[in-house]
Amino acid sequence: MSDIDQLSTEDEAFLRPYLPDDDAISKKERPFVTLTYACSLDGMISLSPGVRTTLSGPETKSMTHYLRAHHEAILVGVGTAIADDPSLNCRYSRSSSCPPQGLRPVVLDPTMRWDVAGSKATALASEGKGKAPWVVHATSVLDQNPEVAEQAKRLFVGTDGLCDEHSGDRTASISRLEWRSILKALYQKGIRSIMIEGGATVINDLLLQPELVDSVVVTIAPTWLGEGGVTVTPAQQTRDGVRVNAARLKETSWRQFGQDAVLCGRLE
Amino acid sequence: MSDIDQLSTEDEAFLRPYLPDDDAISKKERPFVTLTYACSLDGMISLSPGVRTTLSGPETKSMTHYLRAHHEAILVGVGTAIADDPSLNCRYSRSSSCPPQGLRPVVLDPTMRWDVAGSKATALASEGKGKAPWVVHATSVLDQNPEVAEQAKRLFVGTDGLCDEHSGDRTASISRLEWRSILKALYQKGIRSIMIEGGATVINDLLLQPELVDSVVVTIAPTWLGEGGVTVTPAQQTRDGVRVNAARLKETSWRQFGQDAVLCGRLE
Ligand SMILES: NC(=O)c1ccc[n+]([C@@H]2O[C@H](COP(=O)([O-])OP(=O)(O)OC[C@H]3O[C@@H](n4cnc5c(N)ncnc54)[C@H](OP(=O)(O)O)[C@@H]3O)[C@@H](O)[C@H]2O)c1
Ligand SMILES: NC(=O)c1ccc[n+]([C@@H]2O[C@H](COP(=O)([O-])OP(=O)(O)OC[C@H]3O[C@@H](n4cnc5c(N)ncnc54)[C@H](OP(=O)(O)O)[C@@H]3O)[C@@H](O)[C@H]2O)c1
Repeated sequence: MSDIDQLSTEDEAFLRPYLPDDDAISKKERPFVTLTYACSLDGMISLSPGVRTTLSGPETKSMTHYLRAHHEAILVGVGTAIADDPSLNCRYSRSSSCPPQGLRPVVLDPTMRWDVAGSKATALASEGKGKAPWVVHATSVLDQNPEVAEQAKRLFVGTDGLCDEHSGDRTASISRLEWRSILKALYQKGIRSIMIEGGATVINDLLLQPELVDSVVVTIAPTWLGEGGVTVTPAQQTRDGVRVNAARLKETSWRQFGQDAVLCGRLE
Repeated sequence: MSDIDQLSTEDEAFLRPYLPDDDAISKKERPFVTLTYACSLDGMISLSPGVRTTLSGPETKSMTHYLRAHHEAILVGVGTAIADDPSLNCRYSRSSSCPPQGLRPVVLDPTMRWDVAGSKATALASEGKGKAPWVVHATSVLDQNPEVAEQAKRLFVGTDGLCDEHSGDRTASISRLEWRSILKALYQKGIRSIMIEGGATVINDLLLQPELVDSVVVTIAPTWLGEGGVTVTPAQQTRDGVRVNAARLKETSWRQFGQDAVLCGRLE
């Protein structure tokens, strides 16, 4: 038995205006991007990294899988891939309006930290319950791992023009990749729509790049996780030296799903 | 012209189950308590203390004044009173279902930091646009200010059985008062329903005391304020040494008001 229910006609009508649309895609030379996550009333997505956190209910889980069914790929950052070992597959009964090729899992892992072979996503693919994951690396990893260059499941994105930053908690330097380049690489491999599901670092980055995000879908659960959780909150923004709201949605639409709400909108 | 519109019949029906109800009040020996605030998607109520922050739209503002019209008092902490100098009045056209005596502003100010006489609430009262504010102090302030004992607008709550805590940013010690005692003092002065509107410290405290809160009404604006804002998030909670969600609502109901959503519920 599946844990995923079919959505009602009203639920589908609520989501439809925010689904990937072919006209938009052909104009952009990048995939249609839907940014999506589930958070608490205190804006958190987990109690702490790697701690399984009960947030949204069964109705919004079905909603997420419905969205997945309407995208060609799903992406998470390596932080989420390591902390949660997520399935990254789609368990919604697909209809004729869904892209025919199914959902490609993609993990953004610039420095090859993720154990692709040992992951749940790879295991599910070998059981026929999903597609094999792709991994996006910085080209710089090829210096030390030239053998991976030929592997079809690995995409390489250059860090030209970007500086290496130092992360607070790791000695190695991080290769930040430009989201425009990441999306372009995926588009060149045939991905025309992608759902980006987390985690916090990835979402915080993209909320500040409205030109790269087409739809935002946030599920809000009526709970407070409390101090010290993993928060989705972009970096501070100022205008003329004065603090301003960091990001804002327009064309919003809200709907209750079970005890939770789903908010759809587009970044201003 | 008022900036406050009448609510639609549907909006009123949405809020009705969460309004103060006489049966509940007579059983409790304290006022009916509605906890309410407006926050961003990152769970923040302002960009930083004292910075005017655009959060919710005109529709939810009208909703807040509708709620005020159905309560006998409104309370904020002294942090909010000093940072925002709020009006604390009700500009909604009152109907027969509203308590007849109008809305009493109350500021929780244990150590007499607030300038009552110079406040906007006092000015509005003298113009006939609201009632004169009451202030709740710790009885300990009487040692140094015996003259205020006789002022009708001042309530005194004892700190018996409570220790003084040291605040991080002030040298004086803070007199924490028990919420049960604060509410009892207000009830004895005739207040049968109260809306508690903030700020963060007050709300964080009360979210962890479900036995003292009857309804929770949260307005969520589709914006992210960004790192460093004032967050509503209760203290971490653990059960058997494991972190758990700090608070949760049951019997939730969500409704879109303009671009925002309003969530009503009761603390579990
Ligand atoms: N509730 C939800 O909806 C939801 C969904 C997903 C995840 N989560 C939670 O989110 C938490 C994980 O969040 P997180 O912030 O730690 O991890 P994350 O966002 O999943 O991954 C962050 C990592 O991805 C890489 N990355 C991100 N942006 C990059 C860029 N522009 N260029 C190159 N690499 C980039 C970096 O890897 P390197 O460090 O190797 O450079 C970065 O450290 C977990 O607790 C998980 O449970 C919740
Ligand atoms: N968006 C919204 O809905 C909304 C609504 C209201 C406020 N706000 C924002 O909230 C911010 C202010 O929040 P805040 O946390 O600084 O202030 P606050 O919660 O309004 O006031 C905190 C102060 O109230 C007193 N207090 C609180 N609990 C007490 C208790 N149990 N016993 C005795 N005294 C108690 C203490 O005063 P002492 O320090 O003197 O002991 C405490 O420092 C402002 O930026 C304001 O704009 C937003």
